[in-house]
Amino acid sequence: MRVSELGEFGLIRRLKTSINLDSSVVRGPGDDCAAVKFNRSKYLLFTCDMLVEGVDFTGKDNPYLIGRKALAVSLSDIAACAGIPRYALVSVGLPRSTRLEYVDKLHQGMRGLARRYGVNLVGGDFSRSAKLTIDVSLTGEVEKRKLALRSGSKVGDIIFVSGTFGGSIRGKHLRFTPRLKEARWLADNFKVGAMIDVSDGLMQDLSHILESSRVGAVVYAGAIPLSPEARNLNDALYSGEDFELLFTLSAAEARRLVRKGNKLFRPIGRIVLPSAGFSLVAENGCEKPVKPGGFRHF
Amino acid sequence: MRVSELGEFGLIRRLKTSINLDSSVVRGPGDDCAAVKFNRSKYLLFTCDMLVEGVDFTGKDNPYLIGRKALAVSLSDIAACAGIPRYALVSVGLPRSTRLEYVDKLHQGMRGLARRYGVNLVGGDFSRSAKLTIDVSLTGEVEKRKLALRSGSKVGDIIFVSGTFGGSIRGKHLRFTPRLKEARWLADNFKVGAMIDVSDGLMQDLSHILESSRVGAVVYAGAIPLSPEARNLNDALYSGEDFELLFTLSAAEARRLVRKGNKLFRPIGRIVLPSAGFSLVAENGCEKPVKPGGFRHF
Repeated sequence: MRVSELGEFGLIRRLKTSINLDSSVVRGPGDDCAAVKFNRSKYLLFTCDMLVEGVDFTGKDNPYLIGRKALAVSLSDIAACAGIPRYALVSVGLPRSTRLEYVDKLHQGMRGLARRYGVNLVGGDFSRSAKLTIDVSLTGEVEKRKLALRSGSKVGDIIFVSGTFGGSIRGKHLRFTPRLKEARWLADNFKVGAMIDVSDGLMQDLSHILESSRVGAVVYAGAIPLSPEARNLNDALYSGEDFELLFTLSAAEARRLVRKGNKLFRPIGRIVLPSAGFSLVAENGCEKPVKPGGFRHF
Repeated sequence: MRVSELGEFGLIRRLKTSINLDSSVVRGPGDDCAAVKFNRSKYLLFTCDMLVEGVDFTGKDNPYLIGRKALAVSLSDIAACAGIPRYALVSVGLPRSTRLEYVDKLHQGMRGLARRYGVNLVGGDFSRSAKLTIDVSLTGEVEKRKLALRSGSKVGDIIFVSGTFGGSIRGKHLRFTPRLKEARWLADNFKVGAMIDVSDGLMQDLSHILESSRVGAVVYAGAIPLSPEARNLNDALYSGEDFELLFTLSAAEARRLVRKGNKLFRPIGRIVLPSAGFSLVAENGCEKPVKPGGFRHF
């Protein structure tokens, strides 16, 4: 059997069962970040993301935006856990013929975003590689009571998203603003159930929450905010790289959020019993089961 | 200008000057690990290393040993700072056609070493990639007073190495034991001046200590312990991937170490004034300046 048949998530499930973790690890593989004990009030968060030319960006994209994206996707994972990013390591695989100005621009894109969010670029590694490959690993911190995981949804919770969905490939994936500020505002003001950032597609990432929380969901197609660049609803449901927040709140907390009048956050559905599965209600009222699909890594 | 002309170290020097670091960062880019403030008695250490097929291993090597090496090189960086490794993130770029058994073996190799050193594999990322690419980022901790950096050498210090040098490409680079235990023993029992792990070649890595500490050195060729696999002295001086410790002790501490009778550690030279430069005394007594060369990453 080959990795293309099992897929990324099957691979992670396969490998993580055999891993030994000591009691300092609060959350190991299988969430947006790992969380480990740090001090009396806080956890440390760890996340990493590898970007490869031809998969996550093209050789024709602006190197400033490629460097920016490489850090932004990891920042988005810290946001999904309601954390504060602190230290980044950057490993870069480069072809020997790469021009120095190209590397400078990659670095500028990363540095600009690092400065904006108070991230220290503390180290890295350069390697020779046929295709440009950038792996950013990021350490953050979060107050214990604010940590948001995929596993915190309960039946009756309302499902919310930030921003709009679809068509990210037409530009947003290189220019998005990681939702750090918004996630912290949520964690400061509400008791967040589960949270994830939408990287692989809205339906696929929601299915990760459902799996981790052992619950079902009903999503209302008409409630999903489409990006101007989205071609259609399917684009918004499945295309991925929106890097928006997807989270759940109890009904009482949901009412409080809606009353605040913050138009960035929109309810799109609710958490139901696991036996009810995962379904999508079309605009004509017709309810169909969702087969979670989205970006395939292999 | 292309990266192949500037080289890895030129690239790091070029980029690191423009990086903003806050006051929590004790040591940023340019050492074996970054060190940041953690609590009253300890620092956190961060390091990452990217391994690429065709550069750091071949497609014919045993995947168990490839996975093992991917973690071992980062463990060696933690050893060089006299630290204790704690948490690892692993990003893997894989061709779609990779067999699952191959991934299982990579993972087994990594897991075995992780268990041996108490490292928690807390997360990772899979990507599609034409060539197998593994980036491990590792977080460790070290007592403030035990932190060993490249910048701690003083004129008059004695230069020591652990183990033997040369011929690593003929097997050791895939099977070496990172010198974590030995480095901790040194830090527990001695005041270590500077320390580094030899990855790029003995002379090149010594030149990193000399540059960071702003000192010179005299090395005695006849004192360098050759591996059975070393073809000749040049192989031991320049070929790299020995993953041994290279460190300096004051003359008094050096006498104490030698008196302990530990045959693993051998003196190979001494630290001199920067104006005296970096020279090698051949077995015939002839002293020549060293042009630091070693593994070229580009």
